[in-house]
Amino acid sequence: MNLKDLIREIPDWPQKGVNFKDITPLLENGEAFKYVIDKLAEPFLFQNNVIARLDRAAQERNDVDSLVKPENDKRVDKVVGIDARGFLLAAPVAYKLSCGLSIVRKKGKLPYKTINQKYSLEYASNIIEMHEDTIKKGEKVVLIDDVLATGGTARAAIDLIEKLGGEVVGIGFLINLKFLNGEENIKEYNVYSLVEY
Amino acid sequence: MNLKDLIREIPDWPQKGVNFKDITPLLENGEAFKYVIDKLAEPFLFQNNVIARLDRAAQERNDVDSLVKPENDKRVDKVVGIDARGFLLAAPVAYKLSCGLSIVRKKGKLPYKTINQKYSLEYASNIIEMHEDTIKKGEKVVLIDDVLATGGTARAAIDLIEKLGGEVVGIGFLINLKFLNGEENIKEYNVYSLVEY
Repeated sequence: MNLKDLIREIPDWPQKGVNFKDITPLLENGEAFKYVIDKLAEPFLFQNNVIARLDRAAQERNDVDSLVKPENDKRVDKVVGIDARGFLLAAPVAYKLSCGLSIVRKKGKLPYKTINQKYSLEYASNIIEMHEDTIKKGEKVVLIDDVLATGGTARAAIDLIEKLGGEVVGIGFLINLKFLNGEENIKEYNVYSLVEY
Repeated sequence: MNLKDLIREIPDWPQKGVNFKDITPLLENGEAFKYVIDKLAEPFLFQNNVIARLDRAAQERNDVDSLVKPENDKRVDKVVGIDARGFLLAAPVAYKLSCGLSIVRKKGKLPYKTINQKYSLEYASNIIEMHEDTIKKGEKVVLIDDVLATGGTARAAIDLIEKLGGEVVGIGFLINLKFLNGEENIKEYNVYSLVEY
């Protein structure tokens, strides 16, 4: 499946000189959308399924000793999605992995107590927030977003997740704009993407 | 599963007198999140699966005559999600139904050619947009959103979908604030919800 055929380029949007990658034609194609979600979930699917199955079997046998020990549990606990296009990918990835979904929103959009982080991105600067109780200490977290540009947003989201005690075990993007070299900003993490420009 | 235990009430947010329903604790709970998505998809899951299976079998037999005829095809073609919390539910429902996802966004957020609709909601008024090519004439559409309040947003989204030639076959909400009587605004449609206040 050639995903690039379903990504529309919009010249000079949202400002002159930016060649925006519009993923809506891809989202609208049921087969391509399913493929993208499955691919973004894939690196973590096996462990989430297998460990859940082991634990279910142990519970059914009432065999507490065979429950997966926290130190051996490689399950992803949370998928984190970034407001707003990131939600479109992160939410189904969380569903696919049968794990919880935490959200990062622009300042002022979350109703409960928050922590926040300033960030700059390809063509603006902003503040993002997370609820202070959305990640629990020690939870394994996968961050999913639509586009890796300069990596500023992802870096700020990672900072929030780590402030809350989460461990970032993967960062998946649909698109990596390699010419912006955003990976440099998040190079100590397990970064993967499906389409590169 | 008592979903209300996972919906946090935030008094006087975003403005005095509004008792905001915060669904983030529910999203963070993998089991509850999966349950909610499955329930929102359920009314359309059977037909989407069965018809897809019939068509696949006919294709494998190279039996063109047995392909489901357009006039008998009750499959949902698109799930529509509303910016931004609606994305968190609509995207996994589209994934579950193996169909495309179309999005409704606030004015100025969509990069391609749009049609728009003014709407008023519980505590503000705004303009929403859809890409002019996001729904094709005759497509069967399910609209998914987090909360039915006065029904203004849903009504405006329906107007956009119908302007594009889509047929709204269902409107699913996680929460229905019944005391606001929003169903009155969309009473000619198949409206369903999982939690009522």
